[in-house]
Amino acid sequence: MRYSIIGTGGIGGYYGGRLAQAGNDVHFLLHSDYEYVKEHGLTVDSVNGDFYLPAPQVYREADELPLSDVVLVCLKTTNNHLIPELLKTAADAHTVVILIQNGIGVEEDVQGMLPGIQLVAGLAFICTAKAGPGHINHQCYGQINLGNYSCKDGALLSRIADDFTNAGIPAHIVEYKEARWKKAVWNMPFNGMTVALNTQTDLLLKNPATRQLIREQMMEIVGAARALGVNGVDEDFVEKMIAMTDKMTPYSPSMKLDYDFQRPMEIRYIYSRPLAIARAAGAPMHKLEMLEAELKFLGEYIK
Amino acid sequence: MRYSIIGTGGIGGYYGGRLAQAGNDVHFLLHSDYEYVKEHGLTVDSVNGDFYLPAPQVYREADELPLSDVVLVCLKTTNNHLIPELLKTAADAHTVVILIQNGIGVEEDVQGMLPGIQLVAGLAFICTAKAGPGHINHQCYGQINLGNYSCKDGALLSRIADDFTNAGIPAHIVEYKEARWKKAVWNMPFNGMTVALNTQTDLLLKNPATRQLIREQMMEIVGAARALGVNGVDEDFVEKMIAMTDKMTPYSPSMKLDYDFQRPMEIRYIYSRPLAIARAAGAPMHKLEMLEAELKFLGEYIK
Repeated sequence: MRYSIIGTGGIGGYYGGRLAQAGNDVHFLLHSDYEYVKEHGLTVDSVNGDFYLPAPQVYREADELPLSDVVLVCLKTTNNHLIPELLKTAADAHTVVILIQNGIGVEEDVQGMLPGIQLVAGLAFICTAKAGPGHINHQCYGQINLGNYSCKDGALLSRIADDFTNAGIPAHIVEYKEARWKKAVWNMPFNGMTVALNTQTDLLLKNPATRQLIREQMMEIVGAARALGVNGVDEDFVEKMIAMTDKMTPYSPSMKLDYDFQRPMEIRYIYSRPLAIARAAGAPMHKLEMLEAELKFLGEYIK
Repeated sequence: MRYSIIGTGGIGGYYGGRLAQAGNDVHFLLHSDYEYVKEHGLTVDSVNGDFYLPAPQVYREADELPLSDVVLVCLKTTNNHLIPELLKTAADAHTVVILIQNGIGVEEDVQGMLPGIQLVAGLAFICTAKAGPGHINHQCYGQINLGNYSCKDGALLSRIADDFTNAGIPAHIVEYKEARWKKAVWNMPFNGMTVALNTQTDLLLKNPATRQLIREQMMEIVGAARALGVNGVDEDFVEKMIAMTDKMTPYSPSMKLDYDFQRPMEIRYIYSRPLAIARAAGAPMHKLEMLEAELKFLGEYIK
């Protein structure tokens, strides 16, 4: 199968690299690293085994990408206005476009821009980052969950999950809404709170006041999910997320890295959209609303 | 009348100084500045006219203070555990003790330590600070509201208000609970939010997201006051507080100054006590609870 990777950072570079290493036909869209990767290839340091692609198929312009069976969109959501332009040649009505992105409401908005496209949510459980030009560092986990938003070709989606799994990326097809809201249970408290208090996950859970606050924020999401009829987002899941985070090494979520490097934060999809959806469903998430306001204030000072 | 001033900082120095300047018998308890003021007197720079007291009656130890008609307690509430010791000789059952302090629950706790004492809440509307040893800088406003908590001698309380007014300090006797909760409408949002976002009042009101948040936090207090049957704390008052703050020069509330100078913050009486009272009354203040948690986190790192 033919894959195109839009955005070859930590996620796109790792997943695309694994798929190429396993023998799939993978095409990478690159921006600043194009020249480097063209000349030196793509190096991946991974807890699951390092590997090197000497001559990956790389492109500088989106309209050079070939029509593909699958497109992995691995952009920050702050660039989502570019998606129609970036998918112009790579995707048609038969392509499955997987948005490996944070937040809630992404598929709805992309579908609004591209009504004819088949969309799948990609929920990545992975620690991976670009270490340098053409150099990806994959530190932990790696699983991807696929939530079907508007893909009519179930057989193709199953083949994609198999390709991932055969490439060493555990992949599961999950219920779309459940997957997005479950991810929000971790993402909404930790992304923003590490920015608001300039800290990492471990210290938030060490202080009794913020540990309690994180739990209350997670319970706000449980309340919203209940009002929305989303399954699987309950108090047990909250306790599981806290226990999991307790075991993690001190961690800076993506929004904390964005803020520290003065890049735009993904406030719209990690906060504004789910907060508005919850409020409209009669289950406002008060503490997370306050966090959104604090992030908007802090974000104003990013150059 | 004889006045003792416990804590000769910005507030105690200014109010005590004005009362002494007007001819009252005023006794100042001093700590680090005792030697300096003993030798050089007390200098007050004030928008209402500068003045100088060449030989104020000063004391280094609380048990040297004479029994007084009125004691003004001008300490940070973080030192309130010292109050029984500090009032030992200055106050008896006939003395009116005025707690010029921030927050809610102060009188209840001090009364618990000293059941025999007559307590009045002092709500100071003033910008004043210690500029150096024996040197007070009074920048704006100056009014004091007196809320009767347990003073049985109404005539004495009226005389005190008259003494203040005659000394150039506009003073009004107000309803205790209304006064404390009204002050909370401004204090709770602005003290903590300037710390949490490392900013000043003007920028909080300039950003649309935090302007809205400040209003919502104030409305949480309106909800709590309603549940508690406290009068005068309504939406109109909220709009008045926001309009007033819009007109102020950029301002750092006392908690922001405490945090910047790495002094303990008055979290207990500005947040924890009113939050617990509101929650017990069935009107939890969600966003202000989150602010309390953030302040407890930040306060942990004060040496």
